Amino acid sequence: MTPAERAELALLLEVAGAPKPGNVDRERDLADLRFEQFLAGAVGARAGLERAADPEEPLGDAFETAVAGMADAAGTNTQFGCLLLLAPLVRTAATGDLTRERATGVVESTTVADAAAFYRAFDHADVAVQEPPEGAAELDVRRGANAVPALRDRGLTLADVLELSADRDANAGEWTRGFPRVFRTAAQIEASDGPLVDRAADAFLHLLAEAPDTLVATNHGEAVAREVRERALELQSADRDAVRAFADELVERGVNPGTTADLTAAALFVALERGVSVRD
Amino acid sequence: MTPAERAELALLLEVAGAPKPGNVDRERDLADLRFEQFLAGAVGARAGLERAADPEEPLGDAFETAVAGMADAAGTNTQFGCLLLLAPLVRTAATGDLTRERATGVVESTTVADAAAFYRAFDHADVAVQEPPEGAAELDVRRGANAVPALRDRGLTLADVLELSADRDANAGEWTRGFPRVFRTAAQIEASDGPLVDRAADAFLHLLAEAPDTLVATNHGEAVAREVRERALELQSADRDAVRAFADELVERGVNPGTTADLTAAALFVALERGVSVRD
Repeated sequence: MTPAERAELALLLEVAGAPKPGNVDRERDLADLRFEQFLAGAVGARAGLERAADPEEPLGDAFETAVAGMADAAGTNTQFGCLLLLAPLVRTAATGDLTRERATGVVESTTVADAAAFYRAFDHADVAVQEPPEGAAELDVRRGANAVPALRDRGLTLADVLELSADRDANAGEWTRGFPRVFRTAAQIEASDGPLVDRAADAFLHLLAEAPDTLVATNHGEAVAREVRERALELQSADRDAVRAFADELVERGVNPGTTADLTAAALFVALERGVSVRD
Repeated sequence: MTPAERAELALLLEVAGAPKPGNVDRERDLADLRFEQFLAGAVGARAGLERAADPEEPLGDAFETAVAGMADAAGTNTQFGCLLLLAPLVRTAATGDLTRERATGVVESTTVADAAAFYRAFDHADVAVQEPPEGAAELDVRRGANAVPALRDRGLTLADVLELSADRDANAGEWTRGFPRVFRTAAQIEASDGPLVDRAADAFLHLLAEAPDTLVATNHGEAVAREVRERALELQSADRDAVRAFADELVERGVNPGTTADLTAAALFVALERGVSVRD
């Protein structure tokens, strides 16, 4: 398989992993978001993931293509955050060893044009985001392409833009710190055994217990994000029925830890690149 | 979306449709065949499906590429029969209107080289097949590439080869009769509503009641295939729990109506080409 194929498969394995409390999974649709839309989103993202694998293609354009393809196929935002993590990882894997050091090199080589494409990607999908950092209202991602002149004025690369939210957005933190949680989780997936969808569910619950989920904090506040994290921590050694009960509760409350799913997909990709396979 | 993307999505929607008695679905793995292997098989088949969409590429080679990619990704035969139906349908859709007449034209334009590639495809995957027709032992598909000289001697095209088994193999029958069951089922999928995975499950049960499944007949004999068909007929208006009980029983007996799943995937593709979408 190629890196782009493994990235698409990672998206599919992530959504199939169950139970994944609060998220769409093999066992559960949400009221406004269905499993089949994630299948379509993964298929639609593939062309952009192939561009991400091509070092001649600007990384930001590849990401924007992936998001546009996803949104067109799924009709909604299914995997924006996953694709943000996968784009540099696919580029890294397609051009040499997939290491944290080389991934950091890919991040550091991003340009202002990549940042502009990242902003344009927000015009393709409805993405829940936090308020911009103080003094950065012009750079609010919700402005989409309208923010591009401000980006150019300030000469900000995509890495610079993500650095602005690295302390409060888990995906941005991964980008700017060498993907520590993604690689650590990939190692856990590699070290465990059984079907990959089960390992995906375990990885999700582990990541959820590790830090408050960004999307939950954005939509429900820091206190709820901390509570969900603590509950996930208590469930680390629980059986699947207890995890399913927690899943029921989160869905009931409309609490969707989407950023943790993003990290899970990226970790699955790294694990697949390192030789984990559905063939095992 | 492109025809190749829709074909890949059809493979994913087919396997996600549940309950699909006797088959892997969103709710069920089999002992030796897991949901995640079908996800990987669909991803691995994509490159071949893209070749099928390109009229410059020989159709047989495109099919062989799809099967090889599927088998490499999944580690087993997940979607050989689906791909056999999808290859000419993707070619038809990619080159003009997707009608039965034009699909028949694609079938009729196949060559001896396409037949040779079809035989080579059997070397990539373990496919359950019936004994060859009388007088056609040299053309046994289980001989794989070894049968190619006999094909060439007789000047048989891929359409000719499939014609040999059209009476007892449902997929071959579709190829050589203008895909009647596929298009009829696509129209039913279009006319119904609700999530596509639910429509896929309904289409499967309807097809299963329509005729004995080829794979069941191959592995368990005609009597079992007829019995399964009759049971499916009784369940046409049953609730999902009754269908799930039938699914439990078939899995218990090791009865896997795989050819009916192939027809379902092809029907989903035609429905997607005609505008059905997960966005609905």
